[in-house]
Amino acid sequence: MSIAQFRAALGEIAVEDRAALVQQRSRDHYWYSPILKQKLDHVCADLVVSPRSIAEVKTVLAAAYRHGIAITARGAGTGNYGQAMPLAGGVILNLMQMNAVLDIKPDRVRAQAGAVMEEIDHQTRAAVGGELRFHPSTNRSASIGGFIAGGSAGVGSIRWAGLRAFGNILGLKVITCEETPRELDLVGKDILKVAHAYGTNGIIVEVEMPLTQSHQWIDVMVGFPDCIAACRFAEAVGLQDGLLVKEVGICAAPIAQDYFNRHKAYVRPGQSIVILMVAPVAIEAMAVFIEHHAGELLLRGDQLDADEKKRLPPIYELGWNHTTLRAIKVDPSITYLQTRYPSVEHVRTIIDIFGDELPMHIEVARQDGRVAFAGLPLVRYTSEERLEEIIAIHEANGCAVFNPHRYTLEEGGMKRTDEVQLQFKRQADPSGRLNPGKMIAWDDPNFDLTSGRAWLFSGLAPVEP
Amino acid sequence: MSIAQFRAALGEIAVEDRAALVQQRSRDHYWYSPILKQKLDHVCADLVVSPRSIAEVKTVLAAAYRHGIAITARGAGTGNYGQAMPLAGGVILNLMQMNAVLDIKPDRVRAQAGAVMEEIDHQTRAAVGGELRFHPSTNRSASIGGFIAGGSAGVGSIRWAGLRAFGNILGLKVITCEETPRELDLVGKDILKVAHAYGTNGIIVEVEMPLTQSHQWIDVMVGFPDCIAACRFAEAVGLQDGLLVKEVGICAAPIAQDYFNRHKAYVRPGQSIVILMVAPVAIEAMAVFIEHHAGELLLRGDQLDADEKKRLPPIYELGWNHTTLRAIKVDPSITYLQTRYPSVEHVRTIIDIFGDELPMHIEVARQDGRVAFAGLPLVRYTSEERLEEIIAIHEANGCAVFNPHRYTLEEGGMKRTDEVQLQFKRQADPSGRLNPGKMIAWDDPNFDLTSGRAWLFSGLAPVEP
Ligand SMILES: Cc1cc2nc3c(=O)[nH]c(=O)nc-3n(C[C@H](O)[C@H](O)[C@H](O)COP(=O)(O)OP(=O)(O)OC[C@H]3O[C@@H](n4cnc5c(N)ncnc54)[C@H](O)[C@@H]3O)c2cc1C
Ligand SMILES: Cc1cc2nc3c(=O)[nH]c(=O)nc-3n(C[C@H](O)[C@H](O)[C@H](O)COP(=O)(O)OP(=O)(O)OC[C@H]3O[C@@H](n4cnc5c(N)ncnc54)[C@H](O)[C@@H]3O)c2cc1C
Repeated sequence: MSIAQFRAALGEIAVEDRAALVQQRSRDHYWYSPILKQKLDHVCADLVVSPRSIAEVKTVLAAAYRHGIAITARGAGTGNYGQAMPLAGGVILNLMQMNAVLDIKPDRVRAQAGAVMEEIDHQTRAAVGGELRFHPSTNRSASIGGFIAGGSAGVGSIRWAGLRAFGNILGLKVITCEETPRELDLVGKDILKVAHAYGTNGIIVEVEMPLTQSHQWIDVMVGFPDCIAACRFAEAVGLQDGLLVKEVGICAAPIAQDYFNRHKAYVRPGQSIVILMVAPVAIEAMAVFIEHHAGELLLRGDQLDADEKKRLPPIYELGWNHTTLRAIKVDPSITYLQTRYPSVEHVRTIIDIFGDELPMHIEVARQDGRVAFAGLPLVRYTSEERLEEIIAIHEANGCAVFNPHRYTLEEGGMKRTDEVQLQFKRQADPSGRLNPGKMIAWDDPNFDLTSGRAWLFSGLAPVEP
Repeated sequence: MSIAQFRAALGEIAVEDRAALVQQRSRDHYWYSPILKQKLDHVCADLVVSPRSIAEVKTVLAAAYRHGIAITARGAGTGNYGQAMPLAGGVILNLMQMNAVLDIKPDRVRAQAGAVMEEIDHQTRAAVGGELRFHPSTNRSASIGGFIAGGSAGVGSIRWAGLRAFGNILGLKVITCEETPRELDLVGKDILKVAHAYGTNGIIVEVEMPLTQSHQWIDVMVGFPDCIAACRFAEAVGLQDGLLVKEVGICAAPIAQDYFNRHKAYVRPGQSIVILMVAPVAIEAMAVFIEHHAGELLLRGDQLDADEKKRLPPIYELGWNHTTLRAIKVDPSITYLQTRYPSVEHVRTIIDIFGDELPMHIEVARQDGRVAFAGLPLVRYTSEERLEEIIAIHEANGCAVFNPHRYTLEEGGMKRTDEVQLQFKRQADPSGRLNPGKMIAWDDPNFDLTSGRAWLFSGLAPVEP
């Protein structure tokens, strides 16, 4: 391997080698996890390469193949499991220069992988009154390619579920890492091979996504005396098929009071809150529904004056991993987990066991056609042992954990690498240049692909007879 | 009561009194039920009155109040429980002359009650690329007011549930039957008072409904070796949050073979079928999903040639109550039931018990946020006693029945008349002129409002503590 020869092969392609900048681009939000922080702090690439076209991507990948250079794709670097960190050094492939929105139709959009999701929505709203079905809470910075390769669900998943749900991605154009890189157009079942694969088996250069009707979503915050009442209301909202919402999140006290700098002024001491994004067409019915559930309407975006509105971040930036971010900013000792609570009773059990050690945060989202509690509880971190214990207690109580303190695809529990995906990597990245170290099944041929645990990205499940 | 004085009070308002026409307008599709056929055959009004404006509706209702004339509202008369039949004679109030689409916004439409649903969609698609969330399979004839007053769910309910789901109706303008009829604008919770009330407590003159993104839905028919495999596939489709569909219906063999005149050419002997309406954005993923479930793709609307396409009715006219209609046309001895099957296993039990006496037809729809089997099984009718027995066996096996052989609101099990609705009738129709005989709670003050059975329209359910 020779980084000099690799570099020489790039021609006019933009390259960055200043140490401080390369180190910055070698990191994502891995520091959400004290464990990953320790394990990955030293990780650093040699170069950042920023192609501007498919041809340039091919040149980079051909050179990487020939000269034995590791390639780690990077969008905005907002992933928080170290997904985009170059374990084997080499090159950070920065896709953010490829950010064009290519084609907009009433029901779909085609964009380059580096397009920022908010910008896509901006353009599709103007062109056809449509928007992406869902986006991560990092909407304002994350790339669509990074979301597909490293994300799972987000704002809008209460209606459309997440990326793993069939039909939520229409097509991906992927470049392979071979002697002569190929351009593959994946549709249908093949999409599952590359979605949430951390860029280990192909570089996504274009995506095609469905559009849904756009709305001027109204931010709403509702207060409840305790987290369980908040959960009941949130679940009931999720089950109302006619009440069009884009976000339903639950933050137990004292999350809002302690960590939501701007929004805490609206919340009373001790209140647990539900955050909502409500379509204008549903706002009157929602007001009735809140009253019916004895919730206190704390904030309604369409009734704020312009000044007040300007001071507040969009309410989805209180949810998903932004809840964690806000907490860490105030108290750096905090971290979090990703869990699944099968029912309100499970939430109650976990709250009873952990109390304030685990300030509860849950996103209500659809999964496989059912309204589910996707937990993102904060954890007041003390030690790795205690964190493992908290995970074990969750599992012992029937609550699955997708461990965000692991940087491999499989250990996080999000993705089960099956034979089909492995096979695809053999074709698309035969020499294992792409994000090495992130797919266990590749590095360890004895890895058990059939392990019985619950995987978020499980492919097409077999049909019951 | 004096029909002559009443008539004199109408002035210029259009009136029809020719016996044959009045009798025709005194009937709906009550003959779906051999029991209602017998009970209601003699029912006939004295006059049909066809107002063209709110002012004319008020004139009619004031005259009815003053002169003691019963008023039964009528849209297209496609209801099939005798809802629109004038048990006490008097006047049929024909709303079909009030059919203007009044206002279209990207997310909502306002129309007069007599507007035909297909025509509303036609106009909203052209104006804003939107369509109604769902419609009955009588889309091409039914009025929006008649649907709200007498219908429940339909094509699109797989995504949006039915009329009873909060948020699916935005507003109703209702005229009361009093000395001086009032114009009430019902929004929020108040809508529940009048929805599915058979016009017993107010005449709906305008409605406001939410619009969703319109699509060029593709008709699809899939074959399976048996009804249970068809049910499993249909349920799985319903649970796919990312696969955008508008219709999922199951017809066991030999329904398609015996009763679907045009479509039967596509179906093999013995096949049970699933009918689908699929958004173009979901059609490729659906093809994969069908294959994954070992379904046989029998028909795909976007791949038919123009001639073939013209010969076929829209596929939704094989579903909902059109399945029954097609069967009755071929075999007049057939009738049907409305049931709820909690699971595929319940369907299997019922099929095992009844076999060919009950050719199975199920619509898959959302109810309270869950994907549900709304059964509309055909029944090879022999006697009223046997029909009661079939109902009893359903209930004994945990399958609720909404009896379509009853003409009152309550006995059909669709609507629980609660104190709030009764109270509303006291205000809106103090002398009980509107569709007399259809609301038991009005006629029988001792009627038990709190009866424990399952009601489709249950109002806002109490919140669990
Ligand atoms: C505050 C905060 C909130 C968040 N909220 C959410 C949320 O709501 N939902 C959610 O799912 N995630 C969330 N995340 C995680 C992350 O932001 C999202 O997954 C995001 O969409 C990642 O996009 P990115 O452009 O930053 O990708 P990156 O972090 O740059 O990359 C993510 C992964 O994808 C790979 N990759 C990037 N681009 C490509 C490409 N073109 N081809 C192949 N592989 C590629 C990278 O190698 C990496 O493995 C959040 C993170 C933070 C810090
Ligand atoms: C073949 C067939 C298929 C069907 N499919 C479906 C289906 O998919 N889903 C479904 O829910 N139903 C279905 N139905 C039942 C019926 O067609 C629908 O409910 C339909 O929407 C009724 O509309 P309409 O205009 O014909 O109403 P009508 O039959 O004229 O009236 C229905 C009821 O509403 C009252 N009413 C009518 N207009 C007003 C008004 N303006 N104000 C107050 N009260 C009023 C009438 O008095 C009557 O009680 C079907 C029926 C048939 C025959």
